[in-house]
Amino acid sequence: MRYVVGHKNPDTDSIASAIVLAYFLDCYPARLGDINPETEFVLRKFGVMEPELIESAKGKEIILVDHSEKSQSFDDLEEGKLIAIIDHHKVGLTTTEPILYYAKPVGSTATVIAELYFKDAIDLIGGKKKELKPDLAGLLLSAIISDTVLFKSPTTTDLDKEMAKKLAEIAGISNIEEFGMEILKAKSVVGKLKPEEIINMDFKNFDFNGKKVGIGQVEVIDVSEVESKKEDIYKLLEEKLKNEGYDLIVFLITDIMKEGSEALVVGNKEMFEKAFNVKVEGNSVFLEGVMSRKKQVVPPLERAYNG
Amino acid sequence: MRYVVGHKNPDTDSIASAIVLAYFLDCYPARLGDINPETEFVLRKFGVMEPELIESAKGKEIILVDHSEKSQSFDDLEEGKLIAIIDHHKVGLTTTEPILYYAKPVGSTATVIAELYFKDAIDLIGGKKKELKPDLAGLLLSAIISDTVLFKSPTTTDLDKEMAKKLAEIAGISNIEEFGMEILKAKSVVGKLKPEEIINMDFKNFDFNGKKVGIGQVEVIDVSEVESKKEDIYKLLEEKLKNEGYDLIVFLITDIMKEGSEALVVGNKEMFEKAFNVKVEGNSVFLEGVMSRKKQVVPPLERAYNG
Repeated sequence: MRYVVGHKNPDTDSIASAIVLAYFLDCYPARLGDINPETEFVLRKFGVMEPELIESAKGKEIILVDHSEKSQSFDDLEEGKLIAIIDHHKVGLTTTEPILYYAKPVGSTATVIAELYFKDAIDLIGGKKKELKPDLAGLLLSAIISDTVLFKSPTTTDLDKEMAKKLAEIAGISNIEEFGMEILKAKSVVGKLKPEEIINMDFKNFDFNGKKVGIGQVEVIDVSEVESKKEDIYKLLEEKLKNEGYDLIVFLITDIMKEGSEALVVGNKEMFEKAFNVKVEGNSVFLEGVMSRKKQVVPPLERAYNG
Repeated sequence: MRYVVGHKNPDTDSIASAIVLAYFLDCYPARLGDINPETEFVLRKFGVMEPELIESAKGKEIILVDHSEKSQSFDDLEEGKLIAIIDHHKVGLTTTEPILYYAKPVGSTATVIAELYFKDAIDLIGGKKKELKPDLAGLLLSAIISDTVLFKSPTTTDLDKEMAKKLAEIAGISNIEEFGMEILKAKSVVGKLKPEEIINMDFKNFDFNGKKVGIGQVEVIDVSEVESKKEDIYKLLEEKLKNEGYDLIVFLITDIMKEGSEALVVGNKEMFEKAFNVKVEGNSVFLEGVMSRKKQVVPPLERAYNG
């Protein structure tokens, strides 16, 4: 059996890309964790079922989307047969055999898939030429909006905007801005969530030079939604650091309107300070203009650990 | 300045892919070592200049073709800006930033580039839509023939054959078999080469679980061409092992007609024996059916080192 699967703590891009790619490749979409509130909103909006939750890669043919870090994938990835990776992140693993690998430095994996579709090149990655139905176009559009924070993230490229426009036409979405705000608001239900749910919404593990580093992120339209929970979140992060062997945990509270992130820093603060050339006073520091974990947080941290 | 460059000890695929991709991407082709006799024959046949020899990546934008192993690339790859990899090997490196990565498990990098061209999808990887001229089509065809040993290597796919046919039409080659034998004969000039030249024709370094392993290969139509030089080659390999800190060196003398390879084994013989489940009597062992370093030699060795 062949599965397309995104990363742990799946976001809308991981779920939408798995569903749409599985459609073109005639195989099964799957997920490695619970659906978050934003993705739930999107799936309900377009009437698409959530993919099957799977835990083991054993005996399966695996196509990874939206990640290539082993730490974000199956715990037993080696037990499966990895046949392809379709992604928009940095290259996070090496393989022992040749595979299909297609990644582009754009705002979302959905953008990569949409481009292949609109260029009539889906067969390049082994896909069948089929029509992209409105519901699936809506999923890809939502994923682009989610990953680029409505084109505000510095990871946004012209291609993301171009693909979003074309997808919106198929999906019958006449106003992308308006639809985008709906999605971002659905994402921004943090006010109703418990501190541990907020932490786990979008938390990724990395291996930097042999050290375990966790980087979580929550995006809010209105910072007051989390303000009262910050202290509890910080305490939980400290426990997580101790119990799960992290060297450092960074939790980003990204303010979409202010276009920057407050970083809660637990563990190896010196390394964080070296990476960003800042001083962490107390438990956190505001990083002006920082909205993208992938582009603005992971690279400086990895360089700091390696250098 | 932006350069497209293949691996050290360049073969025809590394040179041809660099030249053709640089043409589509409007940048410069380059090479990391001397042109081998086969590639010289091919360049002369189609009247194409050899790419510039460069040694450092410093200050350059780099597009790697036909490899992703750091040990096969610039010594100072980190000093340049890696922006893309177009390849057909296993994933051999990780990156700190998102890049364009496009690899397919087919017989040659030339196949990957040809497919993009014929599917009118060269712009997917940032290329300009231009016509593939007969001389450049001839280079790609030669690279496919060389890497697949005229479609006899087990790495050969239907796509390689399909692309070869289309390229031959553009290049004005009416008989691919005949042209292929010409190339293989040019490759098979080993009779005229010195032992050290034979070793260096196609020698690649790997890092398997922290150990340095070298795997060289020479393909011959007539084994008698190297028979008398085997002893000298073996002595040189023993020196190389000592002087350059290898744990193991494997040198494959691949018999194109017999479809198998004699492996000269220097250094950690136990590891080699474990990998291939064979006994090395004396200095070498014949591996029936083994023609591809990439597909049949690297994976079992890497697994043996890791397990």
